[in-house]
Amino acid sequence: MEVPPPLVLKRPLYVPSKTLMGPGPSNCSQRVLDAMSNPILGHMHPECLQIMDEVKEGIKYIFQTLNDATMCISGSGHSGMEAALCNLIEEGDVVLLGITGVWGHRAGDMARRYGGDVRYVEANFGRSLSLEEIKFAFDTHRPRVFFVAQGDSSTGILQSHLREIGELCRQYECLFVVDLVASLGGTAFPMDEWKVDVAYTGSQKALGGPAGLTPISFSKRALTHIKQRKTKSKVYYFDILLIGQYWGCYGTPRIYHHTISSTLLYGLRESLAHFCAMGLGAVVRRHQECSTRLQLGIEELGLEMFIPREEDRLPTVNTIKIPFGVDWKKVADYAMRKYNLEISGGLGPTVEHVFRIGLMGENATLEKVDMVLSILHEAIQSIKLRSERSKI
Amino acid sequence: MEVPPPLVLKRPLYVPSKTLMGPGPSNCSQRVLDAMSNPILGHMHPECLQIMDEVKEGIKYIFQTLNDATMCISGSGHSGMEAALCNLIEEGDVVLLGITGVWGHRAGDMARRYGGDVRYVEANFGRSLSLEEIKFAFDTHRPRVFFVAQGDSSTGILQSHLREIGELCRQYECLFVVDLVASLGGTAFPMDEWKVDVAYTGSQKALGGPAGLTPISFSKRALTHIKQRKTKSKVYYFDILLIGQYWGCYGTPRIYHHTISSTLLYGLRESLAHFCAMGLGAVVRRHQECSTRLQLGIEELGLEMFIPREEDRLPTVNTIKIPFGVDWKKVADYAMRKYNLEISGGLGPTVEHVFRIGLMGENATLEKVDMVLSILHEAIQSIKLRSERSKI
Repeated sequence: MEVPPPLVLKRPLYVPSKTLMGPGPSNCSQRVLDAMSNPILGHMHPECLQIMDEVKEGIKYIFQTLNDATMCISGSGHSGMEAALCNLIEEGDVVLLGITGVWGHRAGDMARRYGGDVRYVEANFGRSLSLEEIKFAFDTHRPRVFFVAQGDSSTGILQSHLREIGELCRQYECLFVVDLVASLGGTAFPMDEWKVDVAYTGSQKALGGPAGLTPISFSKRALTHIKQRKTKSKVYYFDILLIGQYWGCYGTPRIYHHTISSTLLYGLRESLAHFCAMGLGAVVRRHQECSTRLQLGIEELGLEMFIPREEDRLPTVNTIKIPFGVDWKKVADYAMRKYNLEISGGLGPTVEHVFRIGLMGENATLEKVDMVLSILHEAIQSIKLRSERSKI
Repeated sequence: MEVPPPLVLKRPLYVPSKTLMGPGPSNCSQRVLDAMSNPILGHMHPECLQIMDEVKEGIKYIFQTLNDATMCISGSGHSGMEAALCNLIEEGDVVLLGITGVWGHRAGDMARRYGGDVRYVEANFGRSLSLEEIKFAFDTHRPRVFFVAQGDSSTGILQSHLREIGELCRQYECLFVVDLVASLGGTAFPMDEWKVDVAYTGSQKALGGPAGLTPISFSKRALTHIKQRKTKSKVYYFDILLIGQYWGCYGTPRIYHHTISSTLLYGLRESLAHFCAMGLGAVVRRHQECSTRLQLGIEELGLEMFIPREEDRLPTVNTIKIPFGVDWKKVADYAMRKYNLEISGGLGPTVEHVFRIGLMGENATLEKVDMVLSILHEAIQSIKLRSERSKI
């Protein structure tokens, strides 16, 4: 034996309990956590397929869609982005990406690898894209695929006008992809009504499920397009014609595609069940109420939201300007060390500019809002005091 | 609201407890199941990164490798196959696939999508590939990449000569990919000694972890090749230069790539810890002893193993010829209905030909072997009796 067994694995597993109020993952409820210690099921067992069917129905509800091609990708939210682009794009297709933070660029990186001819339409700093900007970009680029994140977690921007963009996409014979990873549950998203062709969301944010399974849905129009591809989609693992067969989406016999994690299915199923029991409207209202209260609290603390226009603010991931002279890292460390509370810094264009506070799922309650405000205040004061003292 | 909340999600989650002795997933121990109800951690939290480091060390041990580029792909075993091929193959590369069942064909499907020039070398029915067959194929095709499954779970074939193939790959300047999904823990696999360039395994088989995270390792030689690619690898989600950075493989700062499932990490960590505590040698011996006992028992029952040569038999997934006139489906149904025991039928070329009995992880004990033998016997007798009665 050349490589000895590692000593670190002789120690017990250590998992601290934290309040996750960054941009995600959010906390899972005890119901979801408990579900995940259920025994393993085979990936073709009827009880497993039944749970998949239930998850599928739950996704249809939260997306407000009747799409048959509604399923999960066995991977993180990024795998949803991959699956959307991989199935739609063929070599040379013009792919237009809406940029309101980092996720449009990430999608661009993926699209380029699939042979897409990538173009961008970028919003002004701190704002969502206007319909005029988008129309102009459509006229200029005549895209085959248009991608935008409804909520960009790096900036906290909420993209409106999805209904109008849906219409525009029909006029231009363009396929419309919406990333709901950070936004779902925090704002309305009637997929069918808004004529969205592909949508996917994160399981570990407002849904309150575990990371690792990504709900996704394809419209009939998208499916027809995919069936008429000249070449197979580039990735077997993301081929939704095959995955959908496994998920029983097409009325054909279920065929094994990969070994789904029954553990994650249990967790996702329970998070969806809770979400559905509360009702989509109530969930969205709660997330919005929490964000409104947070925004008021932020003003009362003499702080400022990063996004100037209220209508551009994502309720789930809230971005707050870092006060001048304050080291954000020290504030976040204070909250984590003293209260096991995650408050996050920025990402991409917002690094060093903002705090990001997530109000999602279990953590979207007024009680948690008040808690995070009070800890943020305490942390900033404490850091200011320390830095003043060190100057003396 | 157009789509109402689904009624099925008002019912409680139902997960029966089964003994999974098909080709996988296998059962998880209570230790692993309990670990998965731990609270969620953020994907960049130090405690999460620490667990990733521990998992990495565990993988190095079970693969017997010192490769820095050792990590997990966030996906099922198939995502390991994708990641191996996606990172190695460039447009037009000759990719040679060893066929001992279905997995070589699956890898061929993937390789073709990445632009590989796909060739096959197929073993005789029920046998592993001989070194001569492989040498001849290398001479004929001069491959850039050679893929073979150490254990093919569809046929129960164990591929030997990996050491010699490793040497051959060096001579032919070919990259050597080995699929360990079904074999790891059931037979030796010293990755570095055998000069294997990429290896990946299933977490949900002999390891006894949950499905959804796939251990994978790349040799220095593979990594150098990948760094010198003319084009980026086709899939962002599988780009091991990026994933390895997140896993802290390259000595550079950790950069977010995707949101790993902390839940699955806990489970995999605990399964690896248990595996390491028992020791690789002991685990392999136990799997082999169990398979030997099963094979003896099968003979005693008057049944026959599907693989003629003992040295070609995979200890983890055992294939047994279906006796003439017996409906395998009824046998499997009997075992499941009466004992909640999974015995599986064939896959691909072995459909209708074999039973597949998995002896993996928690289920690789002599007690379980005796149990599965006795239930298999009872089920066959019962089915025979019923079909004789129906003839009268």
